[in-house]
Amino acid sequence: MYTLLTSLDPSSIPSSLTPPKVIVFSSANPSFWIGHYDINLILPNGTSLSANETTALFEKNVAVARALGTLPTIFIAEINGRTTGSGGEFLLQCDMAFAGPDAVLGSMEGAVGGLQGNGGIQYLVRRVGMARAAEYLLQATSIGAQEAAEVGWVNRAFESEDRLREGVDEIVYRLSLLPAGGLNGTKSAIRANGPSVEQADADVATILRLFPDEIGYLPRLIELSENQTAGEFELGALRDIKDVERLHGVE
Amino acid sequence: MYTLLTSLDPSSIPSSLTPPKVIVFSSANPSFWIGHYDINLILPNGTSLSANETTALFEKNVAVARALGTLPTIFIAEINGRTTGSGGEFLLQCDMAFAGPDAVLGSMEGAVGGLQGNGGIQYLVRRVGMARAAEYLLQATSIGAQEAAEVGWVNRAFESEDRLREGVDEIVYRLSLLPAGGLNGTKSAIRANGPSVEQADADVATILRLFPDEIGYLPRLIELSENQTAGEFELGALRDIKDVERLHGVE
Amino acid sequence: MYTLLTSLDPSSIPSSLTPPKVIVFSSANPSFWIGHYDINLILPNGTSLSANETTALFEKNVAVARALGTLPTIFIAEINGRTTGSGGEFLLQCDMAFAGPDAVLGSMEGAVGGLQGNGGIQYLVRRVGMARAAEYLLQATSIGAQEAAEVGWVNRAFESEDRLREGVDEIVYRLSLLPAGGLNGTKSAIRANGPSVEQADADVATILRLFPDEIGYLPRLIELSENQTAGEFELGALRDIKDVERLHGVE
Repeated sequence: MYTLLTSLDPSSIPSSLTPPKVIVFSSANPSFWIGHYDINLILPNGTSLSANETTALFEKNVAVARALGTLPTIFIAEINGRTTGSGGEFLLQCDMAFAGPDAVLGSMEGAVGGLQGNGGIQYLVRRVGMARAAEYLLQATSIGAQEAAEVGWVNRAFESEDRLREGVDEIVYRLSLLPAGGLNGTKSAIRANGPSVEQADADVATILRLFPDEIGYLPRLIELSENQTAGEFELGALRDIKDVERLHGVE
Repeated sequence: MYTLLTSLDPSSIPSSLTPPKVIVFSSANPSFWIGHYDINLILPNGTSLSANETTALFEKNVAVARALGTLPTIFIAEINGRTTGSGGEFLLQCDMAFAGPDAVLGSMEGAVGGLQGNGGIQYLVRRVGMARAAEYLLQATSIGAQEAAEVGWVNRAFESEDRLREGVDEIVYRLSLLPAGGLNGTKSAIRANGPSVEQADADVATILRLFPDEIGYLPRLIELSENQTAGEFELGALRDIKDVERLHGVE
Repeated sequence: MYTLLTSLDPSSIPSSLTPPKVIVFSSANPSFWIGHYDINLILPNGTSLSANETTALFEKNVAVARALGTLPTIFIAEINGRTTGSGGEFLLQCDMAFAGPDAVLGSMEGAVGGLQGNGGIQYLVRRVGMARAAEYLLQATSIGAQEAAEVGWVNRAFESEDRLREGVDEIVYRLSLLPAGGLNGTKSAIRANGPSVEQADADVATILRLFPDEIGYLPRLIELSENQTAGEFELGALRDIKDVERLHGVE
C-alpha cells in the first residue's frame, strides 16, 4: 500500500504521465475488506522484525493515511466484508465509502485498551458526529451497512454486491470523464476540513503511551481468535457482548 | 453537580482509587430530565443571593460544562422528560445521549432575547449541523425524541422507557469491562473537536451583554409559568406558537 | 443582491430604523431558484464588460457571500426549482434552507474543470460531511429534495409547494415575535463554525488558478444549453450521465 501510494505522488510520476483520477479499493475476500493489524507484528517477541523495522512499519502506516488525504487521486472504498482496526481507519481516510449488505464496520482498539489512531477517530467524528463516534468507538463495537449509511459512516449502502459494484462503477465512469484540475481542487478544498497534523500526531502519541498497557490483553486476543484466523471470534468483530466478556475473563 | 464533578477530577482522587468509568444522568421526575435555571436566581432582586454569590453560581455552571468535556469519566444522558434551557446545554455537553418516547429537547433562551451559553450552541452545531441548529435555536422551540434521533441531537431514541433503560444499561455494562486507558484516550481525542475555550468564552460574553435586555421579558415568563411550576405553559416547552404569542403579548 | 445586502448592514441603517429580522429568498420561476452564472460574463470576449468591471462583479460575489454570514438578519432559502452553480453556493450560505418537491440542488463547476467557490464547498461539508460532499461535488451532479433533506443539504423537504410556503411562513412569523438581540447573538455563535476567511480565500485562489483550463469547456456548455436557455440540457442539471458524455465528447 505504501509503495502504491508513493507511486501516485505527482512528484514521482514522469511529467509525460498523469496520476490516476480514481482508485477503488475492493476485496476479493468475501469476509474481509481490510482487517486489523497482524497483532504478532506489534507484540514484543511476536515478530522477527527488529525494533527499527517495526518503527519503519509504523511510520509507513502514518504516511499511508496522510497520502490518502493529500494525493490528487480520488480514493473510493467499496466494501462488502469486515473492516476493523487498521482496516476501519483506512476506510475512514478514503474520500468516499460505499457498502454492500455484508459490510461490517468497526473498531476493536478500545477492547484491548488502545484507540483508533492517526486520523481514524477524527474522520469518524467528521462523518457521524462526536456523540455517535463516542458511542461506537468507546464500546469498541461494529455495525452493519444499513446503520452505517444512516449515520453517515459510509456514503450509502446497496442491497446486493452486484448493485454495489454497479453503483461504484457508475461513479468511477463519471469521474473519469471530468477534468482532473477540478477534481483535485475540489478534493483539496474538502480535505482542508480534515484533522490537523498536530491532532493526528497527538492521537498517535496517545496510542504509543497506552501501548505498554495494551500488551497484556493481546495474547488473549490471539488465543480467542485462534491466532487471527477467520473463525467465530474474528468474524464476530466484537458485536456480541459475550466476546467482550471472554476477552476480559468474565464468563 | 459542581461538587460531584469536582470529586471526579483525578487530581482530587487518592491514588489508591480510580475515577468511575461511566456516569449516567437519569431523572426520577417523569416530566423533566433537567429543566431551565430558576429564573428568580438571575433576576435582580429575585433572590437573596449577593452579587458575589450569583457570580460564583454562574462560574460553577461554566466549570461544570468544562468538566464534562475534560474529565476522563464517560457521561451518558438518559432522558425521558423535558430538557430545556440549562438542562438542554447540559445534555449536549455529555458524551452521549439516549432518549425515551417522552423526551422533549429544546432551548428557550431565544424566546426571552438570550442565547444558549457556554458550549450549548457549539455542541448542537456539532450534532445537527449549522442549518438545523439555526432552525431550532433561533426559533427557541423544542422537539421530540424521534426527530432528535433522526437529526443526531441524541444518539438514538428507544420506543419505551424500559427499552431506554435496558439500552443504556447494556452500554454501561460493556464500557465497564473495557480498560480505562483506552476509554480516556478515545474520549480525549473525540473531545478535541469540541468548541474552543475562546469560543465558549465569546458565547458567555454575548449572554452577559444581552442580559440587561432579557430582564424585561423574564417577569412575564415567571407569570405564564406560574413561577415555573409544571403546568401547561412549562410543560409545553414553547412548542406551541400560542405560548410564544402569550409571552410577547400578541394574543 | 449586493445592493440589497449592503443596505442591510447596520452601519448603513439610520439609528431610528432596525434591520429586518428575517429575509426569505423565494423564486417566481417554477424551474429555477437561482441558476448558475451567466457564462458569457466570465468568458474572455463573451461580454462587453471591461476587465475592471468583471473583477468588480467577482468581488461583489465574494462580498455577498460574506454578508449572508455576518449580517444580523436571518436568511432563509425557500426553494422549489433548480439551484446549481452560484445558485447552489448562495443556498448553502443562507442560515437555513427548505425545499419543495421540485427542488433540484447541485453543482456543475466540476463538469467544466472548476470548483464551487467562496464557501460553497465548505458549507456543504458542514451540512453533509466530507464524504458526501465529495460524492456530490466531485461528480458535479444534482439531487432532489428528498435526498437533500435526508443528508442535511436542506433542513427539510415539504411534500407540496403550498406546504413549503406554509412551513416557511410559520418559521418567519415565529422569528418575527422574538427579540432581535437573541436572534443576532445566536446567529453569530452558529456562524463562528463557518469557514475561515483564509479558507474561503484559498478556494477562490484555486478557482482563479483553474479558470484558464475551464475556458476550453465553456463554449460547449453554452452550445449544449442553447446559450443557457431552459431547455432539456439546462433543466437536466447534469443528473444524466449522457449529458456529461455530450459535454466531454463521448457519445
